Amino acid sequence: MNLILLAPDELDGQRAVLADARRLKHLHDVHRARPGDELTVGVMNDRVGRATLVELDAHRAVFELGTLAAAPPPALPVHLVLALPRPRMLARTLEHVTALGVKRLTLLHTKRVEKSYWQSPELNIDKIHQHFLLGLEQARDTVWPEIELIKGFRPFIEQRLPALMKDHRGLVAHPGMPNACPRQVSEQTLLLVGPEGGFIDWEVEQLLEAGCEGIHLGARILRVETAVTALLSKLF
Amino acid sequence: MNLILLAPDELDGQRAVLADARRLKHLHDVHRARPGDELTVGVMNDRVGRATLVELDAHRAVFELGTLAAAPPPALPVHLVLALPRPRMLARTLEHVTALGVKRLTLLHTKRVEKSYWQSPELNIDKIHQHFLLGLEQARDTVWPEIELIKGFRPFIEQRLPALMKDHRGLVAHPGMPNACPRQVSEQTLLLVGPEGGFIDWEVEQLLEAGCEGIHLGARILRVETAVTALLSKLF
Repeated sequence: MNLILLAPDELDGQRAVLADARRLKHLHDVHRARPGDELTVGVMNDRVGRATLVELDAHRAVFELGTLAAAPPPALPVHLVLALPRPRMLARTLEHVTALGVKRLTLLHTKRVEKSYWQSPELNIDKIHQHFLLGLEQARDTVWPEIELIKGFRPFIEQRLPALMKDHRGLVAHPGMPNACPRQVSEQTLLLVGPEGGFIDWEVEQLLEAGCEGIHLGARILRVETAVTALLSKLF
Repeated sequence: MNLILLAPDELDGQRAVLADARRLKHLHDVHRARPGDELTVGVMNDRVGRATLVELDAHRAVFELGTLAAAPPPALPVHLVLALPRPRMLARTLEHVTALGVKRLTLLHTKRVEKSYWQSPELNIDKIHQHFLLGLEQARDTVWPEIELIKGFRPFIEQRLPALMKDHRGLVAHPGMPNACPRQVSEQTLLLVGPEGGFIDWEVEQLLEAGCEGIHLGARILRVETAVTALLSKLF
């Protein structure tokens, strides 16, 4: 928790009051915080600054806010479309990509996504939000990501992709594509990453026909969570 | 398991015989392999190619090797020095960096590494080797990484670093350093990454005095496993 992210209902003028067990425990056990300590705070979707802890007990923490003048770190210019990974991989990947600055995320069904993954409790919106929160706290960010779940590949291609391609450079990451992952891209990018086992040929064809460029990460086959971090780090 | 890594004692002329439970289970349950199937195999520290499964039962799998002519994927030109992460993070990080192609790894004690981490069962050499194996199988690599554990920062600076700096470009990744992480480096690189909480100032000074360049990953504070993948992906 490198930043304490304050929700609007936790603010009270120049004060903020936290009462949730997770953050109180973290303040006690990890920060070993005491009244008088200064910590980094940020207001949801807004500015970042310092705050002084004025009260801390088992039930609540009260902060006196300083001037919150700093902008959160810049977001990545990317819309990430991820074939739904298996649940444990999803959980970690959500935290990685949130910490890296992804703000627009689509989880997509493709042929090689196991259908049972769509029933996983990890897709509960509260669980997803918890991973977003941990990612933002880690990276000292305040800007909440948007997520959408699209449970069919064809509806995505027909109804969602054409609008996205209007204002994004589309990149489909897939082993064996002709071009290496580009570097230091600044334009708005739509990045599509397949499931464990990859997109099927027909899916790749559909994406290329829609105007996406095929890119690869070299001869090494990486796990989804490693590949996504590697792609975002090379691209931006 | 994108490649079956064959140890020398599993080879018998043009045949290979596996008898360990983990890989037999994977062949049964994940590959759903049957005699006649072709799979990718590689010989430890040697070539990669295809092999035909000729027998599979609960106790062993027998492969008939084709021509193993392909080189394993290129290694990264890096020696990675990692302040010892907490055990679960270590386990995942070892798999990520092995899959990414790191072949020389030092786990180092620094001031902010909790001493108890050095007693973790994750540091058992068999556990470490298991992570190497999973990383190599993932990335279709055959070349076994080297690892050393150095339990003191001062001995590292005094006895190990001078020799490493003779034939490496030293980079210390630390928030707040003046230069962004360089891109597409081809020279032999020594990359040093601090623990959760970072190097202490004195450690950074020692590394800079020894000739390392300080580099950063931007305003976002990343977890060690994310940061290491991001650094390796930007650098190479």
